[in-house]
Amino acid sequence: MTRRQEILETAGDLFQRNGYHATSMREIARSVQLRGSSLYAHIDSKEELLRNLVHEAADAFLVAARAVDAKLPPEQRLRRLVHAHLGVIRDKLPHATVFFHEWAHLPPELQRDLVARRDAYQAIFYDTIEAGLAAGSFRVEDPSLATLFVLSSLNWTYQWLDPEGRLSLDALADRYATLILGALGAGPPDLDTGRE
Amino acid sequence: MTRRQEILETAGDLFQRNGYHATSMREIARSVQLRGSSLYAHIDSKEELLRNLVHEAADAFLVAARAVDAKLPPEQRLRRLVHAHLGVIRDKLPHATVFFHEWAHLPPELQRDLVARRDAYQAIFYDTIEAGLAAGSFRVEDPSLATLFVLSSLNWTYQWLDPEGRLSLDALADRYATLILGALGAGPPDLDTGRE
Repeated sequence: MTRRQEILETAGDLFQRNGYHATSMREIARSVQLRGSSLYAHIDSKEELLRNLVHEAADAFLVAARAVDAKLPPEQRLRRLVHAHLGVIRDKLPHATVFFHEWAHLPPELQRDLVARRDAYQAIFYDTIEAGLAAGSFRVEDPSLATLFVLSSLNWTYQWLDPEGRLSLDALADRYATLILGALGAGPPDLDTGRE
Repeated sequence: MTRRQEILETAGDLFQRNGYHATSMREIARSVQLRGSSLYAHIDSKEELLRNLVHEAADAFLVAARAVDAKLPPEQRLRRLVHAHLGVIRDKLPHATVFFHEWAHLPPELQRDLVARRDAYQAIFYDTIEAGLAAGSFRVEDPSLATLFVLSSLNWTYQWLDPEGRLSLDALADRYATLILGALGAGPPDLDTGRE
């Protein structure tokens, strides 16, 4: 990891734990064992750190979703998208937290940038839902609202997803995807509910 | 509205718009057209405002959910709970935003308090899902995860719910509840999807 990346990761952890505004450059310097003046050799400002973190988060979601083959059958594509999303939340939790909490307070031109990425990301889910409707494998009244619903259920996991939790990411993503597919009317899955 | 309530509402708006740490007592005073010194006649500190706002949010969710008759059939109870939750998000959007963004940074004793309320709230949803499973009207593999899923889909709406949006709260809550009931395997609702 370069010194710059180390600073970025550390800043992400501190912003996540204490909030962006409550974190000082002095604390960041202390955490990476640099003098304040040396920190500024690597980074211009706290805002530059924020800018980098939110971009990294937005890009990570988009890259992960674009890596899912768009030609897969909609159910399978959606399963993979759920897996990809939860993987980014797990791997980039500080970035995602900072992104979700701070993006509405960012300067307008940076916000426009992020909105464009968010819209592109949302479109991937919307298209998958539309494809499922066209194929007759999904059944929902309002595909736009269904898209928001799916992304809401996925985004909020940043508040509780625990990489050390009782379920592995694969198991969590599978069960989460099954719930989502149920919401989209993909037909009740063949579950063993363990109930008599 | 009392002066104190007015200050609280204004602080909520400012915290939501600019973040808690980025908002100064001076700005709050200016927004309610008080001198800084007069503001302190009504309120001790910015932290007191935060404390009040997050408590108000946590209480609003709990009060709304407890007002839903626990003896309703699980499907109906869940529909009402969804409606109640979205109503609180709409009516208390600044409070909810501040609650969701700041609660992890609050002093431990206040956090414990909020965690207890959150757990009580979560239990209402969990019990409803368990009741639906017992009655054979829901079908899910993992009721704990299903509870988290449902609450995730509901909580994240604070990011996009627009009281002036294309759907009324009733219409939004109905469609949202239908998606949630689908996820819980409540059987595909009788929809007119408008598709041939």
